[in-house]
Amino acid sequence: MPAPADPADERAAGGASLFETEYLPASSDGARYRWFRRIFHHDAPDERNFDLVLIATILASVVVVLLDSVPSVKARWHAWLYAAEWMFTLAFTVEYGVRLWVVKRPLRYARSFFGVIDLLAILPTFLSLLFPASASFTVIRALRLLRVFRVLKLVEYSSEAGVLIQALLRSRRKISVFIATLITIVIIFGALMYVVEGPEHGFTSIPTGMYWAVVTVGTVGFGDIAPGTPFGRFVTSVLIVIGYSIIAVPTGIYTAELARSLQPRRRQVRCGECGLPDHEADAWHCRKCGRALPLED
Amino acid sequence: MPAPADPADERAAGGASLFETEYLPASSDGARYRWFRRIFHHDAPDERNFDLVLIATILASVVVVLLDSVPSVKARWHAWLYAAEWMFTLAFTVEYGVRLWVVKRPLRYARSFFGVIDLLAILPTFLSLLFPASASFTVIRALRLLRVFRVLKLVEYSSEAGVLIQALLRSRRKISVFIATLITIVIIFGALMYVVEGPEHGFTSIPTGMYWAVVTVGTVGFGDIAPGTPFGRFVTSVLIVIGYSIIAVPTGIYTAELARSLQPRRRQVRCGECGLPDHEADAWHCRKCGRALPLED
Amino acid sequence: MPAPADPADERAAGGASLFETEYLPASSDGARYRWFRRIFHHDAPDERNFDLVLIATILASVVVVLLDSVPSVKARWHAWLYAAEWMFTLAFTVEYGVRLWVVKRPLRYARSFFGVIDLLAILPTFLSLLFPASASFTVIRALRLLRVFRVLKLVEYSSEAGVLIQALLRSRRKISVFIATLITIVIIFGALMYVVEGPEHGFTSIPTGMYWAVVTVGTVGFGDIAPGTPFGRFVTSVLIVIGYSIIAVPTGIYTAELARSLQPRRRQVRCGECGLPDHEADAWHCRKCGRALPLED
Amino acid sequence: MPAPADPADERAAGGASLFETEYLPASSDGARYRWFRRIFHHDAPDERNFDLVLIATILASVVVVLLDSVPSVKARWHAWLYAAEWMFTLAFTVEYGVRLWVVKRPLRYARSFFGVIDLLAILPTFLSLLFPASASFTVIRALRLLRVFRVLKLVEYSSEAGVLIQALLRSRRKISVFIATLITIVIIFGALMYVVEGPEHGFTSIPTGMYWAVVTVGTVGFGDIAPGTPFGRFVTSVLIVIGYSIIAVPTGIYTAELARSLQPRRRQVRCGECGLPDHEADAWHCRKCGRALPLED
Repeated sequence: MPAPADPADERAAGGASLFETEYLPASSDGARYRWFRRIFHHDAPDERNFDLVLIATILASVVVVLLDSVPSVKARWHAWLYAAEWMFTLAFTVEYGVRLWVVKRPLRYARSFFGVIDLLAILPTFLSLLFPASASFTVIRALRLLRVFRVLKLVEYSSEAGVLIQALLRSRRKISVFIATLITIVIIFGALMYVVEGPEHGFTSIPTGMYWAVVTVGTVGFGDIAPGTPFGRFVTSVLIVIGYSIIAVPTGIYTAELARSLQPRRRQVRCGECGLPDHEADAWHCRKCGRALPLED
Repeated sequence: MPAPADPADERAAGGASLFETEYLPASSDGARYRWFRRIFHHDAPDERNFDLVLIATILASVVVVLLDSVPSVKARWHAWLYAAEWMFTLAFTVEYGVRLWVVKRPLRYARSFFGVIDLLAILPTFLSLLFPASASFTVIRALRLLRVFRVLKLVEYSSEAGVLIQALLRSRRKISVFIATLITIVIIFGALMYVVEGPEHGFTSIPTGMYWAVVTVGTVGFGDIAPGTPFGRFVTSVLIVIGYSIIAVPTGIYTAELARSLQPRRRQVRCGECGLPDHEADAWHCRKCGRALPLED
Repeated sequence: MPAPADPADERAAGGASLFETEYLPASSDGARYRWFRRIFHHDAPDERNFDLVLIATILASVVVVLLDSVPSVKARWHAWLYAAEWMFTLAFTVEYGVRLWVVKRPLRYARSFFGVIDLLAILPTFLSLLFPASASFTVIRALRLLRVFRVLKLVEYSSEAGVLIQALLRSRRKISVFIATLITIVIIFGALMYVVEGPEHGFTSIPTGMYWAVVTVGTVGFGDIAPGTPFGRFVTSVLIVIGYSIIAVPTGIYTAELARSLQPRRRQVRCGECGLPDHEADAWHCRKCGRALPLED
Repeated sequence: MPAPADPADERAAGGASLFETEYLPASSDGARYRWFRRIFHHDAPDERNFDLVLIATILASVVVVLLDSVPSVKARWHAWLYAAEWMFTLAFTVEYGVRLWVVKRPLRYARSFFGVIDLLAILPTFLSLLFPASASFTVIRALRLLRVFRVLKLVEYSSEAGVLIQALLRSRRKISVFIATLITIVIIFGALMYVVEGPEHGFTSIPTGMYWAVVTVGTVGFGDIAPGTPFGRFVTSVLIVIGYSIIAVPTGIYTAELARSLQPRRRQVRCGECGLPDHEADAWHCRKCGRALPLED
């Protein structure tokens, strides 16, 4: 018997819809409403053009941050990059203000995921006025890219992303079990290699050994730390074969769930007698009460 | 027709249930029984709280072992870590004693998988009193983490892990064939590279060549040993393409088995009216003619 | 009910058929038509032999380009390689001329994908007469290999490649979502590592950090740049586990789509006697009642 | 309509059965027949014991070859390893002689795959008497391991391996298309990196660049050659994302084929009228001629 809709699943789906919260407009006509539609809807040509301009601006501002970190580029173009940085910051500040102005409950928007991102996108530049050498805020600036996800809500992509996320959510318990197994393997092999190889081959502590085990079991293999003793190499081979075998597990889980998502062959017709809503594609009678099903879907 | 249950499969499943053995209580009421339930059951809020405390203690004791291996941390906090280590050891000693006290057949528990783990979790610390420089016992201490698996038995996760393990068990023969093939490839390419590249490029023996072949075919590629001659590089390319092609095999095996596990089971019962033999698992009436289905399968 | 054919899919398939455009012959008999068939058809023994000679010539010309780049080979065989290069160039020039001569609309062919490739295959050698040290044209010469794809259109392989491409086209939206996610992860982790590790461990700029993140999340792991600080190693481990988890996504998408492509199509026709609606593609009679099925679907 | 049985497939399957050729005994009773059964059959306990002894001997002889290549082991145990080597060689010589003695057509066996392996397993040691420094024969000795595959024919494993090989054979055309694509990508990126990075970063020729491209696209990434220029790193990132995307293809192909192999739901009953042998699991009438199918399978 297929499991009935799991409340935990629905809660998780609700968690995902955090990113898709329906905001209400502050007023239902006038310029304020027009801007609300322009920003929060993605259907009319006008609204789509706004989205495209916003996406281009976000990408351009990220490119400026990237270029600003390259020493040779910074040496030569610093003034221009600095100007562009402030131009983008002011543009995003205006956008943030307009967003707060047009939604019904500005505080609720400000505390939502995208509201926080909006603030993080402008805050670092303003803070740099106070603390000149704020290099570490570059990370926060990079979060500006998270705005890119917003555009995924565009009509064309929504149903596709929906299927992918749905399959990921359905597999999340199995993937938790898998990651717990992985962490256990990493701790055991990290400690084992620390004992077998020791500091002279780079395994200076168990956490270092665990870092090496993650790099190895994930088949990355930087080679900054590598086993030097015959027994250490044997342990490494065992770890690689284990990693090679279990890489199949998340792929298998996800593929099987996705294949289930893609199977479309059910009749969604409600039985007139008992109300059962979900039947096989070739069913004529309800499998619970035996009553003939309505012909039209 | 689905294959009938394979006795070999069931034996293997029995082997897996080694980890889930139902222990009997030594007495059926009193403090001894309450503690039995607290330790071996995971349903009531009280029992779940005990599980959570135990999980937290296990994780904390593992973190102490990890930190103790970092030279800079050890130099500064050694006294605290030493105290914590003894505290955790005493706690686990008490827990081990209680477990032996509450089960009906203590010796059988002591010889079971989790009984051995419980002993290994406390033994190294006591042994360190006798043999001061027992660095290699850190490995055994890491086994303490295996206790984490115990919590996988919690109700919420059990059915998920069950499906994963069931699919792994069903694919184990195919995976054996796959690993035998892999070992053959590794020996042949290890010997080949030993002959082609020789000791001057790091291939000092056939076992070293086999270590390199495992690292390569598993797509890890540390780079501590790498081919230097044109022909050696050609052989490497062939090995990589082979590895790239056969990595599909375990994934394919596991995914196909898992997809089979996820397919809702069907009732194979023949309708008395129209004879339709294949129904959904929860069907009471034939979906074609509406006649009630026979109760027994 | 399976989704109706998506017009966007068909447009994309039309885009793919750019590579398979049906060219019309300039005349319908005589030598010109015989050469048209010889070049553009792949059915008769004569036409297949022409294909085989062409494939062998393309492969040989590519091997000459490869050998010419090896210093030791070039030092010894330069005169022979130079002669072979001109021989192949003249042969491809003649072939290009014949192609333009036999098709109905030469300009349209010249502007098509394969027409451009044909030109690129001969242009570099002629240009090397004008600009002697044209090392960078070797790349363009390598494009000569794209001619190899032409042979994929051979009868034997066409249906196989068709299924693969069809499944790729159907999954392209999901894969776009996946690649957008990947780029976001790469930018965020590249910036993070630039801040955490800094130039002293090789992370000289955010783009360098992004290169490292791609190398890591793609499980390549050259090791030319590797984290040196404990926190950097922790961030690396997180990135690897993320990469390990999402590598399942494109595999899952593609496998599920391919499995759908491989499922033998069914006839959705309702039996006049018993009404069974779903039959095998080659069924003439209902498998339940034996009545002949209606001819039209 | 599913494709009718492809003669090419059957030919390939015939090629695979090269490894499983049924040999005829030279005589049908006496010691000669008993030894024939002992060697070529795997059913009776006596025959299985012979298999186990042979497997152990093969594995032991391989281990001796491996140990003999380790300088430190060889220095100390050379005399013992040399003696063991000759002992195994004589044992395999006797086995080879017995095999030729008991089969009906010894020459046909000698020319078969396993006959050649049997000869290669003993030849190198005898040749070492003639040519003392025959280091390169170690490779041929490693082929001795191919005998291990012989044991895969044991009853228990045969059906499993059969499904795996059947799925591989059915996917071989798609995998050829995939490998052709891979080689094209490798040549183009190898040439591109040779031009972009040049000899100063290790890309000394296009073949070297191709070796690097295989190592990169296969996600091995030794790091012995790595890009040094910004544009080279960008090209590398593109190559990695391409490799990351197409690694899904062979997995998808194989998984989909394997899933098809595992689907058991057909009735294998021959229609009395038209002889069609393969029907859906719930079929009562032949889908071609409409005649009622026999009830028993």
